[in-house]
Amino acid sequence: MHLVGQQVVDGATTDDATAHCRAMGYILDRVGDKWTIMAVGALSLGPMRFNEMMRKIGGVSHRMLTLTLRGLEREGLVTRTAYATIPPKVEYELTDLGRSLITPLTALADWAHQNRPAMEAARARYDAKV
Amino acid sequence: MHLVGQQVVDGATTDDATAHCRAMGYILDRVGDKWTIMAVGALSLGPMRFNEMMRKIGGVSHRMLTLTLRGLEREGLVTRTAYATIPPKVEYELTDLGRSLITPLTALADWAHQNRPAMEAARARYDAKV
Repeated sequence: MHLVGQQVVDGATTDDATAHCRAMGYILDRVGDKWTIMAVGALSLGPMRFNEMMRKIGGVSHRMLTLTLRGLEREGLVTRTAYATIPPKVEYELTDLGRSLITPLTALADWAHQNRPAMEAARARYDAKV
Repeated sequence: MHLVGQQVVDGATTDDATAHCRAMGYILDRVGDKWTIMAVGALSLGPMRFNEMMRKIGGVSHRMLTLTLRGLEREGLVTRTAYATIPPKVEYELTDLGRSLITPLTALADWAHQNRPAMEAARARYDAKV
């Protein structure tokens, strides 16, 4: 039998790749946007208050960071803790699940850091042709 | 001197993290969207024609895949080769730069695959509370 699920597949490799592709799609729909990834990156430095996160990330609006942190809390990647101090203090921190995302994200950030010049050069060449 | 660039930083670790964060932001603006990552994932299986890519990715519109592939070509991650056959054949393939993105993306896809159930459970708990 070569029919697996709803489609004909070439073998386990393609099948795995498709399953991974779909899982990736699910996750990217939820945590794949730029600000979410930058927020996880900022919190990888340690627990942090809202204003400190805004400074670390740079260029993010108050509203966008609020929505991003709410999304991360909903997906179980971040906890929000309010301390009954004067003035009140609210701190955000990665959960164990959130922390487990640091390693793959760091690998991607390293790639980005190393290959940004190559991408910029490619873009300049492409734009010169068009 | 503790002033580096425009802001006071705690030390090299924070500085590196900020630089990585910014490089990440740059890359995510360009290749960080869901369809771009899924397209690289599909092409990691080998050179592919447009319709085959649409089937592999699933749920992507003709227009969105066209724009995605044009963006990847512009950034130097994908080549587009037209063969003068009858009927004409156009194939997309990852460049060396594009292929270098497979390892960090696979790490992220593996994370997504493993942690999707935990995220779904967290979301159900969060939504039950609200």
